[in-house]
Amino acid sequence: MPMPVAIYPGTFDPITHGHIDVIRRAASLFDAIVVGVAGSSTKAPVFSLEERTAMARESLAGISGVRVEPFTGLLVDFAHAVGARVVVRGLRAVSDFEYEMQLASINRRLDASLETVFLTPAENYSFLASTLVREIARLGGDASPFVPPNVVAALKAKFG
Amino acid sequence: MPMPVAIYPGTFDPITHGHIDVIRRAASLFDAIVVGVAGSSTKAPVFSLEERTAMARESLAGISGVRVEPFTGLLVDFAHAVGARVVVRGLRAVSDFEYEMQLASINRRLDASLETVFLTPAENYSFLASTLVREIARLGGDASPFVPPNVVAALKAKFG
Amino acid sequence: MPMPVAIYPGTFDPITHGHIDVIRRAASLFDAIVVGVAGSSTKAPVFSLEERTAMARESLAGISGVRVEPFTGLLVDFAHAVGARVVVRGLRAVSDFEYEMQLASINRRLDASLETVFLTPAENYSFLASTLVREIARLGGDASPFVPPNVVAALKAKFG
Amino acid sequence: MPMPVAIYPGTFDPITHGHIDVIRRAASLFDAIVVGVAGSSTKAPVFSLEERTAMARESLAGISGVRVEPFTGLLVDFAHAVGARVVVRGLRAVSDFEYEMQLASINRRLDASLETVFLTPAENYSFLASTLVREIARLGGDASPFVPPNVVAALKAKFG
Amino acid sequence: MPMPVAIYPGTFDPITHGHIDVIRRAASLFDAIVVGVAGSSTKAPVFSLEERTAMARESLAGISGVRVEPFTGLLVDFAHAVGARVVVRGLRAVSDFEYEMQLASINRRLDASLETVFLTPAENYSFLASTLVREIARLGGDASPFVPPNVVAALKAKFG
Amino acid sequence: MPMPVAIYPGTFDPITHGHIDVIRRAASLFDAIVVGVAGSSTKAPVFSLEERTAMARESLAGISGVRVEPFTGLLVDFAHAVGARVVVRGLRAVSDFEYEMQLASINRRLDASLETVFLTPAENYSFLASTLVREIARLGGDASPFVPPNVVAALKAKFG
Repeated sequence: MPMPVAIYPGTFDPITHGHIDVIRRAASLFDAIVVGVAGSSTKAPVFSLEERTAMARESLAGISGVRVEPFTGLLVDFAHAVGARVVVRGLRAVSDFEYEMQLASINRRLDASLETVFLTPAENYSFLASTLVREIARLGGDASPFVPPNVVAALKAKFG
Repeated sequence: MPMPVAIYPGTFDPITHGHIDVIRRAASLFDAIVVGVAGSSTKAPVFSLEERTAMARESLAGISGVRVEPFTGLLVDFAHAVGARVVVRGLRAVSDFEYEMQLASINRRLDASLETVFLTPAENYSFLASTLVREIARLGGDASPFVPPNVVAALKAKFG
Repeated sequence: MPMPVAIYPGTFDPITHGHIDVIRRAASLFDAIVVGVAGSSTKAPVFSLEERTAMARESLAGISGVRVEPFTGLLVDFAHAVGARVVVRGLRAVSDFEYEMQLASINRRLDASLETVFLTPAENYSFLASTLVREIARLGGDASPFVPPNVVAALKAKFG
Repeated sequence: MPMPVAIYPGTFDPITHGHIDVIRRAASLFDAIVVGVAGSSTKAPVFSLEERTAMARESLAGISGVRVEPFTGLLVDFAHAVGARVVVRGLRAVSDFEYEMQLASINRRLDASLETVFLTPAENYSFLASTLVREIARLGGDASPFVPPNVVAALKAKFG
Repeated sequence: MPMPVAIYPGTFDPITHGHIDVIRRAASLFDAIVVGVAGSSTKAPVFSLEERTAMARESLAGISGVRVEPFTGLLVDFAHAVGARVVVRGLRAVSDFEYEMQLASINRRLDASLETVFLTPAENYSFLASTLVREIARLGGDASPFVPPNVVAALKAKFG
Repeated sequence: MPMPVAIYPGTFDPITHGHIDVIRRAASLFDAIVVGVAGSSTKAPVFSLEERTAMARESLAGISGVRVEPFTGLLVDFAHAVGARVVVRGLRAVSDFEYEMQLASINRRLDASLETVFLTPAENYSFLASTLVREIARLGGDASPFVPPNVVAALKAKFG
């Protein structure tokens, strides 16, 4: 049985050490990980799709078996397009958990062959959310404990 | 990269359709699944380790790539013994989630190379727990919507 | 004692099979159910109050004892206006639960005679939320597993 | 349509002001409430089935439309026996919620015509659990803010 | 050891009886409480920073050891500026809890000497949120059970 | 205003690095911390009250302002006996949170002057529970990442 390709979808607005930790763990379990950067969203991201994709690519350059692709339609269509039958998601907190269960159920209904697997980041990243990182940068705080150097620079350029 | 062996540990007192659903999903993701039936426990199981192992073996006989083994020590030691570096766990509810996060953290501390992945059963099994199945059987109810026929028979023999 | 009239309030943006399932259950418990479509809201609905009311009316036409009314003020005032002393709400997840407990407490404080009762949809609708249905439709996905045919058509007209 | 009979099942070890508050609310919604005191349980109650039934009867004597019955089998069988098609349960906390969702799903599977409705007690009873009341009484504390006078006396006789 | 100064930060849009209850409790534990009204926010408050600060000052005028200050940067910088090494937060519900844990972890990472302590309001305020108060006022309801008279007046002026 | 004395009650079966972390944080906030080791309990501790008290004393010997006392009655009575008007509790997870809210409410009802404050341990202890430590030790695992050396020795003597 060939090892499955997995996608790790998200908004990555911006990518954090918590995301990277989950991707490293996923990369040790699956032959190939496609990090899918979601384009259109009702969330109104601070960074453009191109910026978010570029930041993720730079941040993940050193991890073998991982590539980054933007996508703009349904997750299940993106999975088909890249030949994935596994979706990887990180779980940090109870509130994550319920939303993720909803998404996993919806995706299973849209495509019964798509399986969602959940991984947990290291505990010292369990509190980390892109929302909080953006808030810290917006208020002039130091985001370097939470995101890689290229993202620190991008946050400064955006909010400085 | 060879595909990882995964263990799916539990008390299985008794195995339910919910467990079997998770095992089927796991078997589609990993080359080999070792279902680990935990022997000693502070829970005082209703069925003996031998009974629980036998019921699981019968219930899973038709799923390729799956074998059932009892174990009595630490989960991390069992994982080493069978050459697994992945632990599969099912997630149904928030209360599951927190306990599972604790276990995953503890196991990661005991062996950093052991990764825990979470799968979710079909929604119609999301309410299913061995505790409730035993309670129904104990009160003379029909457990056949929840467990396979061999387990129905074992419950009747135990509680009938 | 005459059987109480109950209201089932919501935004219904749009009505889903999950809402309809809860309404069917409520209709078997109470003499009359008034489905209250909330007009003004900080949520900025995708469909207008008239559209949401019309979609709900079409979707519920076959269920006896149920009628649909828009309302624009406080829930407690709407309850008085239609002679209801029971509010019915659906509970799917923990996050629902806490928000609903808040609302029930607030409404009890505003009118101590108004009782809130909670029902749960069938498990296969437990993941269903109008937000996710809109997102699927917006991305060009098929919403027909989640909403009735008239709503599928309305979603296509809105997002197509 | 005749108004449905509802059962309110529990261990009532012992009955508290929180239970009584939920029963009063239920009695205003349904023609008849049968409070079902569960006999056999893996919980090993402190009070016998007879004691728990008697305490509940005394505590609820003044509420019209309410009667108390012990039962020892499945909840669905008890519901049939008393002609009820509604189960009432109180919801206080998230941990309640998940267990109650499990029970409601199991009971719906065992008997699709049995509907579970949830009510919430007044906020000042939201923390109240029989377990805590027993612990306070066992340690010599004053249980009178939490249970009616007849139960205070029974707790003193048991633990004094 | 001199008793620590504590800050109680929030948006206070507007201040409610729940906030005031927590502040009274905090004032009995610490020598001085600085209520910090957060200026900039992605939340887009209904009341301006000046209005929110003024309402909080009026509402808290009678509580000794409490003063109110607006702030616009990072919480950790505000804490340094006022000489506080303790952050007080109120906990009402599970959803609060997780967000608060995230914030406490982030702040601990930004400044390891800053400790967050959590207090719980009286149960009859456990459901109270500024969001719900604004919604009631916006719909023409009576907010006086939830906020002090000066805030009732301000809500009427804003939404009337 | 003299700084309040606080109690930190628990079963401490056995004391872990997570407890010690919370006690260190509490000791920086209050003049004196009395660690209260609960004697009687329905939990049937593995270690006796004397053993649990001795382990806690040894583990906390180096922290100034902290003393350890066993107690066997109600928490509110113990608080009075040692002159404390603050109870400190650690919060790790949602399941903790709800139980702790219940206890805080009950204690507030039994003694309105007793305030409960919650602290959170460092994230790397957020998964740590005495139950899991005992289980690891019982199964022959190494408990030294989780508890101090004197407790490691006591666990070996008990389970070895």
